[in-house]
Amino acid sequence: MIELIGDERLDFLLAEELRIIQSPSVFAFSLDAVLLAKFVYVPIQKGKLIDLCSGNGVIPLFLSTRTKGSVIGVEIQDRLYSMAVRSIQYNQLDERISMIHGDIKEMPKRLGYGKFDIVTCNPPYFPTPAKKEINENEHLAIARHEILCTLEDAIKASSQLVKQGGKVAFVHRPGRLIDIIELMRRYRLEPKRVQFVYPKQGKEANTLLIEAVKDGSPDLKIENPLIVYNEENEYTPEIREILYGKE
Amino acid sequence: MIELIGDERLDFLLAEELRIIQSPSVFAFSLDAVLLAKFVYVPIQKGKLIDLCSGNGVIPLFLSTRTKGSVIGVEIQDRLYSMAVRSIQYNQLDERISMIHGDIKEMPKRLGYGKFDIVTCNPPYFPTPAKKEINENEHLAIARHEILCTLEDAIKASSQLVKQGGKVAFVHRPGRLIDIIELMRRYRLEPKRVQFVYPKQGKEANTLLIEAVKDGSPDLKIENPLIVYNEENEYTPEIREILYGKE
Repeated sequence: MIELIGDERLDFLLAEELRIIQSPSVFAFSLDAVLLAKFVYVPIQKGKLIDLCSGNGVIPLFLSTRTKGSVIGVEIQDRLYSMAVRSIQYNQLDERISMIHGDIKEMPKRLGYGKFDIVTCNPPYFPTPAKKEINENEHLAIARHEILCTLEDAIKASSQLVKQGGKVAFVHRPGRLIDIIELMRRYRLEPKRVQFVYPKQGKEANTLLIEAVKDGSPDLKIENPLIVYNEENEYTPEIREILYGKE
Repeated sequence: MIELIGDERLDFLLAEELRIIQSPSVFAFSLDAVLLAKFVYVPIQKGKLIDLCSGNGVIPLFLSTRTKGSVIGVEIQDRLYSMAVRSIQYNQLDERISMIHGDIKEMPKRLGYGKFDIVTCNPPYFPTPAKKEINENEHLAIARHEILCTLEDAIKASSQLVKQGGKVAFVHRPGRLIDIIELMRRYRLEPKRVQFVYPKQGKEANTLLIEAVKDGSPDLKIENPLIVYNEENEYTPEIREILYGKE
């Protein structure tokens, strides 16, 4: 049996294949995390993958369906780390996914430099606000704002963890595209693939997926546009396939 | 009467409203140029606009339908300059559009620094190839390759010509996005709006539209995706509207 704390629920991830613990008041994964886990290139048969700012472990769980390699998730918040650990146990994925409770900035020293094939990160999106404006829910505030982890922290740690020729993939807001490109290049990560997510046809993009290669050569592709909702506010077939698999 | 030289034709631009001289062997305007002329912000009632690398004048002609301001086109190739001048005369737009036969790098000194509200440019897309690979048709080679005008030349001249707070818009290939962003920032042009053009739903982008503001504050928007063809290889309604106006 799995222990659920407070208002935690055991939700479905990927139709019936996986379950994940979420909590409306503490943390629930976003579509962005799922899109990142689907967007990133992964080696199928083996490899070492690491996900930074893992929250309740949605990206490691999702990645484990795409690769036979090992996945590490890193989460600084104790409560979210606990949710991730319990979800991994529930899904009997302990042998392929492990969680680390710690600060991403310390991972290169702890796990080694240049040891990973793939690094993913769905970092906090918002600059740290003035104290009075900060989200009163500390869990959500840390997950959403650059309080414990700035964009530069996340990109720097990713670059240190990934091996030469390995891939680093981030999801973020389009407004940070230029910052991301500049920071990635500063840390020897060459952006190779970008995909924009548009909430609807005719609307501006609200999400950006980007994959870079450590010490790669400059050659950027803009992948096909992902449109989330159709005119009837239903998920489009492409999003349904990402969320639920082929039907 | 208009003089047509060699295999030149008098083609329609924007349904029946305008005519433009083209030539299959010398120069024919591309969809990219039309998309740029429609993408860029223009002041409606007045203003000074300048288009660099004008070719046969398609962008100045198109812009003249969107603003009552004055438009200058700059073209270095004598034959294309001549086509543009004759098209402007044919459309009786001499009072609002003027062409300059010259090098864009000399325009700031000739026309003044910081005098323009809007600068547009559809530059040559391709790096200068080895001599033997170069397009044997010199007109097409100069229009397509960075022989007489590099991307940096075009961005530098644009920045010198535009006034503080004025806008600079380029069309290019998505593979040059990072170069464009880096060069624009180097010349104090802050990218504010980007739009990607996808040949079809599900395909990667093949064209990039970008608008920057001189000395603007960082705040990038990714505009709605433009899809050119539908599944039947017909223009989509959005492209038809841009090409032919509302029907």
